Amino acid sequence: MTSEEGQRGRFITLEGGEGAGKSTQAQLLQQWLGSRGVQVVRTREPGGSPDAEAMRRLLLGGRAAPFGPAAEALLFAVARADHVAVTIAPALRAGQWVVCDRFMDSTRAYQGSSQVSGQELDRLERIAVGDLRPDLTLILDLPASEGLRRAGERRQPADRFERDSLTVHEARRAAFLAIAAAEPTRCAVIDASLTPEEVARAIVSQVSSRLGAMLPEPA
Amino acid sequence: MTSEEGQRGRFITLEGGEGAGKSTQAQLLQQWLGSRGVQVVRTREPGGSPDAEAMRRLLLGGRAAPFGPAAEALLFAVARADHVAVTIAPALRAGQWVVCDRFMDSTRAYQGSSQVSGQELDRLERIAVGDLRPDLTLILDLPASEGLRRAGERRQPADRFERDSLTVHEARRAAFLAIAAAEPTRCAVIDASLTPEEVARAIVSQVSSRLGAMLPEPA
Repeated sequence: MTSEEGQRGRFITLEGGEGAGKSTQAQLLQQWLGSRGVQVVRTREPGGSPDAEAMRRLLLGGRAAPFGPAAEALLFAVARADHVAVTIAPALRAGQWVVCDRFMDSTRAYQGSSQVSGQELDRLERIAVGDLRPDLTLILDLPASEGLRRAGERRQPADRFERDSLTVHEARRAAFLAIAAAEPTRCAVIDASLTPEEVARAIVSQVSSRLGAMLPEPA
Repeated sequence: MTSEEGQRGRFITLEGGEGAGKSTQAQLLQQWLGSRGVQVVRTREPGGSPDAEAMRRLLLGGRAAPFGPAAEALLFAVARADHVAVTIAPALRAGQWVVCDRFMDSTRAYQGSSQVSGQELDRLERIAVGDLRPDLTLILDLPASEGLRRAGERRQPADRFERDSLTVHEARRAAFLAIAAAEPTRCAVIDASLTPEEVARAIVSQVSSRLGAMLPEPA
């Protein structure tokens, strides 16, 4: 490990369908990293910077939906470019770790399951994130029916993407698993049907084995 | 005039290149209409609603530029859809008049002078504004060189679109004049090289002659 690599923070993303427990696990991971002496910025997509949060409202509220899936993919990408420039890249440069609830794999799984071409999604990704890649992506995996049941229990009105059919949600799950299979060095699949405590333990185990050498020495 | 038409407010847009005095004239027109007993909502594009203002920052700050002109046109359209739904349409329904600094003609002149097809711009416009059209569009006309000189005197850093070349600015001016020629019932060209007071008088004259019958009777 060069000293420059040692100074740069690590970038961990949590991915998966609705109701997989990403937000909860991001919070638990932040706590665990904090207990190991790591400064963590926890963020999310869509959103994560003030202007990208406004685009989140437009996207999840359905304002962009009439413009079609290519338009939605583009809005996600512009929001991501802002999120990376304003929030993620400065934190990593400052040596902080970033834990992000959804990132580029959600675009691949959500917009990639729609009519947007893989070529166009690649173009948008290249512009939005440049050569930034997560050091570790945790894919929280769960049958779509179970995820939707859990998401429904939150009692908030379903957003633009939660309202899609079960078939669409299953296609997204398959897309996440395909990404994990294609990039096993970056991605780890976590069984999200377990209890939150068990899921958190599985995540800590992955982070320790894959990024443990980057963690500060215990005092 | 049916009673329903009498209740709906009127929608006036100000268009033109950089430094033509649109903001100043929008303010003066709001004051004049106010003195005639009209309730006026003054707004602007890009922006005009909280989420659209965030998109304004992304657009004018240049964050969307790397995605290309078609992407920028789309972002303007999504912002416009929100602006219409949140700000303009409710005001008009409530019988207020709306004075808007830039609207759909700016998209035609700015993005239409770029590589975006007229067909795509029409599609975006249809989704963003539905069948809403300004009752009157005032096109503030000025040689591009003079407009840029005036805009430069504001001493703010030039935005994403102000930085374009003089040739591009001239093409936009020509596009505005072509719109006015094609839709003379909706549009009036105002000589913006005159003093602000003279321009304001020309605007009041157009509003009085074209929409005077809609104004409340003098008390």
